[in-house]
Order: sequence, then structure tokens, then C-alpha cells
Amino acid sequence: MNHQSERSFPRVVVIGGGFGGVQVAKRLKRSPVQVTLLDRRNFHLFQPLLYQVATGGLATSNIATPLRYMFRKQKNCEVLLADVTGFDLQRKVVILRDGELPYDQLVVAAGATHSYFGHEEWSELAPGLKTIEDAAEIRRRIFMSFERAERESDLERRSELMTFVIVGGGPTGVELAGALAEIAHHTLRNDFHHIDPKEARIVLVEAAPHILAHMPEQLSHRAAEKVRSLGIEIRTQTKVTEILPDRVTLHSAEKTEVLKTRTVLWGAGVKANPLGKLLAEAAGLECDRAGRIPVEPNLSISGHPELFVIGDIASCAGEDGHPLPGLAPVAMQQGQFVAKRIDSIARNKKHDHVFHYRDRGSMATLGRSVAVAKIGKREYCGFFAWLMWLLVHLMQIVQFENRMLVLMQWIWNYFTFNRSARLITESPSSNDSHPGEPNTTPESTASPSDS
Amino acid sequence: MNHQSERSFPRVVVIGGGFGGVQVAKRLKRSPVQVTLLDRRNFHLFQPLLYQVATGGLATSNIATPLRYMFRKQKNCEVLLADVTGFDLQRKVVILRDGELPYDQLVVAAGATHSYFGHEEWSELAPGLKTIEDAAEIRRRIFMSFERAERESDLERRSELMTFVIVGGGPTGVELAGALAEIAHHTLRNDFHHIDPKEARIVLVEAAPHILAHMPEQLSHRAAEKVRSLGIEIRTQTKVTEILPDRVTLHSAEKTEVLKTRTVLWGAGVKANPLGKLLAEAAGLECDRAGRIPVEPNLSISGHPELFVIGDIASCAGEDGHPLPGLAPVAMQQGQFVAKRIDSIARNKKHDHVFHYRDRGSMATLGRSVAVAKIGKREYCGFFAWLMWLLVHLMQIVQFENRMLVLMQWIWNYFTFNRSARLITESPSSNDSHPGEPNTTPESTASPSDS
Repeated sequence: MNHQSERSFPRVVVIGGGFGGVQVAKRLKRSPVQVTLLDRRNFHLFQPLLYQVATGGLATSNIATPLRYMFRKQKNCEVLLADVTGFDLQRKVVILRDGELPYDQLVVAAGATHSYFGHEEWSELAPGLKTIEDAAEIRRRIFMSFERAERESDLERRSELMTFVIVGGGPTGVELAGALAEIAHHTLRNDFHHIDPKEARIVLVEAAPHILAHMPEQLSHRAAEKVRSLGIEIRTQTKVTEILPDRVTLHSAEKTEVLKTRTVLWGAGVKANPLGKLLAEAAGLECDRAGRIPVEPNLSISGHPELFVIGDIASCAGEDGHPLPGLAPVAMQQGQFVAKRIDSIARNKKHDHVFHYRDRGSMATLGRSVAVAKIGKREYCGFFAWLMWLLVHLMQIVQFENRMLVLMQWIWNYFTFNRSARLITESPSSNDSHPGEPNTTPESTASPSDS
Repeated sequence: MNHQSERSFPRVVVIGGGFGGVQVAKRLKRSPVQVTLLDRRNFHLFQPLLYQVATGGLATSNIATPLRYMFRKQKNCEVLLADVTGFDLQRKVVILRDGELPYDQLVVAAGATHSYFGHEEWSELAPGLKTIEDAAEIRRRIFMSFERAERESDLERRSELMTFVIVGGGPTGVELAGALAEIAHHTLRNDFHHIDPKEARIVLVEAAPHILAHMPEQLSHRAAEKVRSLGIEIRTQTKVTEILPDRVTLHSAEKTEVLKTRTVLWGAGVKANPLGKLLAEAAGLECDRAGRIPVEPNLSISGHPELFVIGDIASCAGEDGHPLPGLAPVAMQQGQFVAKRIDSIARNKKHDHVFHYRDRGSMATLGRSVAVAKIGKREYCGFFAWLMWLLVHLMQIVQFENRMLVLMQWIWNYFTFNRSARLITESPSSNDSHPGEPNTTPESTASPSDS
């Protein structure tokens, strides 16, 4: 290992190359510190558009940017592909799988993963959407279901294959459902001979009384109306109590319903990265129920003013006393705050501010060319909101090149209803069969290749 | 199964959605036949540009087109995702993993896979480049090697990590080596703090006396000069006799050499898809050494005028008596020929032609903006050849959309030296460690996520 700083600048280690970590590192560009940005992947992922990859609208590389490329011009920032296995807060070192990394200041921004609320056995049957591998797996399941349906002559099994259940009515679930409706009604319209993709049934399940529960109630109502008009069934105040390879059981106050389906997608819960627990143990703190670490008003942790926790892995109280939601703007603003604080400390300047989150609004797309948005106190629903959504997301995508290509891809998709990235690739975890169908795997040596 | 044709048109089954198979199906557009195109993948892959995906220059979806999309407007062609397990030539049915498919005429265009010349144990250590999964794996190994080198303080091991050996001096090997040189000298120039990517060593190994042996000797010489000027070492008349996780052994008339390396890429040999053997057995024929099926001058097989074999899986004698090479133009011309023959038969017209391959030339790129090309009797080497190469390949990419995006991506890459698709994704087969380094896998639950 050769990561001792050559200079005597304070060493700032940032764990996680997501929205929070990248913000910290970028904002320290002119600070008298030496930054090391650690991640176990070599790219930053623009997660808000991951659902577009999962539904074949965008290619992976459209929404991922190599971290080294992002920081190639920032002399005081080093990118390190490494795997964190623990912390020694006394000696001030991060423990890696193959070494140690000393720090003067540490920022933990390791993000979150899916939570199945204690039903870890559901993870195979109902994949969530956090990584590019998740997106490829969901894409594979969606398009493979239509392929299977095309070849199925039994009408009951065919309708099972063409039923899609999405658990979770937050932005991810709603955007997945909208994209699925577009696929069924437009993209695949002329593609099959034996099925009509329009007959696909899409069910969106939400435990709360409304979808998009973080939005104002009226806007949420308008969104629900719009989602229904796309042919999507919404079940609110409904919980999933069982997931099996060929069915899900839904439970509400009124009834228990069994839906026959082969494709369940999970957008319901998140929990903090397991690093949170390791860090809490090292610091003698308790995580909250979602595995997040409680932070002080200045985003450091109790007893460790040199250690900051931001983004989805932090439990940071908002003005209403509730923890702030796991959104990119929260992580980014926290990153900016922490960078400023570290800069002040490095320059021996006073910094006794506390973090305040400025909610600039939120938005979600509902299928083709409609979105809901809350900007400040204003609420928008429709095409104009969708244009705003497009603009905001394009502006945020980090690389100029990606922004241009994504825009072109979208313009093309918009006018042609096309989703050219709908490739069914081989899955790393399972083989090519749906769960519960071990006999239909096409991984045979005696099969036509794609050459 | 519900694949009986509704009409009484002859049923033409085409196995394989590569260059040959797609050509057959497309050219039968106006014929009085019912076509079923079978593949085990849902897309057509533009293999000549696969090396660009393997080196991070293009995204997968830039070079892959969903088969259903290609044939969405062709009413007499049905696309079927299926897995062929055998043939019953008496009953005229293709046996699928989950059913049967009857045919009146059958076209087998199942392509080829890598051949390790009896050293199947090398496949893990030296991946070849045939599928998009191969490309992702090679991309992972290349960029991961630089990442590992960055963290390695032992100079000897660092130089092992930065040594790349490419086996096979055909177009694939030469193009991979050229792209690797570009990565080392340009793309990664400013990306690392502890290594200088320019110090990467790239060795191209070829058993024949020249690289690009299918080209005229003088052109091959000029190509070798150019390749050397990129900093690539060429070893001709040299065979690989051993591949281990940390070294390869090269053997030539003069010497035996051991190269310490962690990255070996295979572009040396191909053999026919295993379906070839199954078909040959069913027909009572003998495959050649590369597993290819000998065909009649009209591309049918002996005793079965209703059964055609084309592309890399066919052994079809050229005018010099040698089998035609496994190139896209061969497969495409054969596809056109067979389509014409099937059309004539369906219309009760006479068709007693035999297949003649028209060699319109060949080309290969040598890194950034240089190519060699033989067009008719003319030979070109340099920037003009590269422009021709670009034009020919862009024109061939099937979808208009892809062509535009690939062109934009290339223009961008050309002026910025950028390869934004250099994402290290998780590998389906191995975990994230190099062979022989089982202790460094980053697949831990306690690692920073990419959120």
C-alpha cells in the first residue's frame, strides 16, 4: 500500500462515490487537503434514471460515469477501488480488505440497499433496483416474460406471465410501472404473433393510503388518476404477505387477494449499507431500525468531530423532527455542507453552523411525457412537469457527453416508441430461468449462438 | 406449442440470428413462405465492433439490435427465443428444449464459438470475444488490472498487472491490441496517481509468419509496422504452450519465453457451434476438424436438398479449394443465395445455381485512426483506410438509431480520447477476482455501495 500523502495536508477519506461522496470530493477541490475517494465500483451511477435502464430505454453507460474520469483534473483527489471491512476510530484508520487507510477526517457516504422487511427470501423472487446489475436483471425478467408468454399456449399460464406486480408506490415503483405500461402499449406493439402485449396486467401495490406519499395529497391523487389511465391497477393500503415463484398474496383491511404472476419487482424498502452497523459498533452508537447512523446537527457523529456521515446511511433529523428522506438532493446538500466544514477546519477558520436541508421540491414521471412535480409551493401535473423533469435530470447527469447521448436517445425513443436497449443478457445470480422453473434454462451447449 | 403456420405456405425455419440467418429471413420478405427465426438470444449482435465494447468505447446496446424490432414489419417472419437440442431429419422437425418445430425447409446458421485447440482449461484464464458477456468480462479484466496496478507497491507484481498478452494476430487480436494501446496512452493518461498507464506492455502473439495473415503480404507488413509504432510487441511464428494465472509460456523456433502477466485475451481460434455435430450425426455426415459441416455447392447438405447450412458453421469450399473464412460477408452472401433458392422453390421456379463467394475485400483498424484495407485489387494503409472502415461499419449497423449514436460516440471519443463505457461490472462466471487471486474478491456485504 502506498497511499500516504506526499504532502502534509490533512488526509480526507470519503467512502462511497454516490451523490453525497462525489459532492464532498468535488467541493474540496481548492481546499488544502488531500482527498481519497473510495468505492468498490469504478463508476458513479445516476440512480434516478436506473429505471430507464431496467426498462430498456437507456444503456448502462448512459447513466454511469467512471469516477476516475470525473476526478481526472482534480489534483488533490485520488480515486481508489477498495473494499472497506471495518474502522479503527482510535487509530483513525479505515480497514480495507487488503490494507489500511489512515485519515484525519472521514466521510462515510456508503448509501443504502434494498430492505425486504425481514423477508430476505423474497430477494430472489422480487429483485429491487439499486445497481446496474439489478437493472439488467429486471430488464431480463420483463422482456423474458413476454417471450415466454409468446410461446405459451395455456391461457392461464400466459396471463400469469403477462402479469407484473410492482411492490412500492414511491417514485421508483411508479416510474417502473409507467415504463412497463409504455412497453406493453407501444414498444412491443407489433413485435409478437401470438400475444397482444397490450393485454399485460400491471399492478402497483402500496402499503400507505396514497402512491407518491411524499408529495402533497392533491398531487398524489392526480398522479394516481394519471397512472390508472395508463392501464395500471393501484392497490393502496395493501401489504404483500407472501411471494412465491408463481404468485403473490396481497392483504388489505377489506380482503386477501392472490395474484398469479411470474414477475414481481421490488421498490418498497431500503436499509442502510451494512457498513453503517460496523461504524456504529466502532463508535459505540445505536443504528435506527433502517440501519442508519444518528448524526449530530453538524453531520458528525457523537464523540467524533472528525467523522461525518451523510446520505442514505445517515439518520439526520429534519425540521419536523423526522429523519430526512433518502433522496439525492439531501445527500448532495449534506456533502456540500461537510466539504465546507472540512475546508474551514483545514484553514483554521471558525465553522459552527448546523445543517439545514432546503427542500427545493420533488418530481416523478408517470409513463410517457407526463410527470408530477412540486417546486417550492407550486404543483404541476402533465407535460410541462415532464419537460421540467427531463431538463432537471439531463442537467444533473454529470458528463456533457452522456447528457447529449441521453437526450438524443430520448428524443429518438419519444418519437419512435422504441427501446433499443431491451437486450436480455445473462444473469450473474440466477441462470436464465425464472425462479421455480429450473427446467427451462437455455444455458445449453447445444443451442444456437448469437454469432 | 402453437407454431403451426395458419396458412399453407411452406414453413422455413432459420436457426441463428447472426449475419447469415438475418439475411435469409430478410430476403424472404416477399416470398410465399412462412419464416420462423430461432435464436437463444433476443438480439442480433454486430460482432465486428464487439472489441469496441470490450475496450469501453461503445455500449452494448450500440451494437445489438432486438431481433423482434428488426422484423416487426415483416409479416411472414416470426421470431422465437428457443433452445435447439436436436434434429429429426426424417420427420422434418427441429427439437427444442420444450417442444418441436416442424419445417419444410431448414437453414442452420448457428455460428461459431472459441476454440482453445484442446486446452479447454484456458478458457477461464484467457477469455475470447464472441458474446456481449465476453466483452463485459474482457472490459472488466482490462480496467481492473490498471486498478490493481495502481494499488500495488511491489514493482514486479505491478508490471505483471500492466502486461497484456493477446493471443491471435487476426483482425480481432489486432483490433483489441490497438484499442488497448489507445487506452494506455490516451484514455487513462491522467487517471492514476501511482502508475503511468503508458508503461503498459502489450504483446500480440501469432502462430503464423504474419499478423493479418488473410491480407496480402505487403499490407500485412505495413500493418505490423504501424502496430509496432503504437508500442505493441509482436511475436510471430510463436505458439502459446501454457497459460497460468500469472504467466504465459510462448514457444518459437528460436526460444521459449515466459511472460509474467495477469491478463491474457484469446483471439486465436474458432470452432463451429456444437449444433453442427448434432446435425452432422443426424444426417450421417462427418464434420471437419473445426466442427463445421461440409456443404454441397448449393449450400444444402448431402441427401437433404431441403436443408441448408451457412456461415461459420458451414465448411464451404472456395474457388481455391480451401474452405471459405468465417467472415460476415461470407455468411451474408450465403444467406442471400439460400433465400433466393428457397424463393425459387416456393414459386416452382428453376434454380440450379451454385454459390460463388465474391471477395469484396477486407479491412482491420490499427488503433486510433489508422486501418489497413484491401478493396478489390487495391491496398490502403492509413487514415483514409480508417475512414473507409468507419463508413463501411456504420453503414452496416442495422438500425438507423444505433448508427447515429455510434457515430456521435465515435466523434466524441475521437476528439476527447474518452471511453466512457469503461464500467467494471460484476461478472457472471467468476467473481470479481482474477484467477489465482481468490482472496481479493470485493463481493462483501460490508463494502460501500455505488449509490
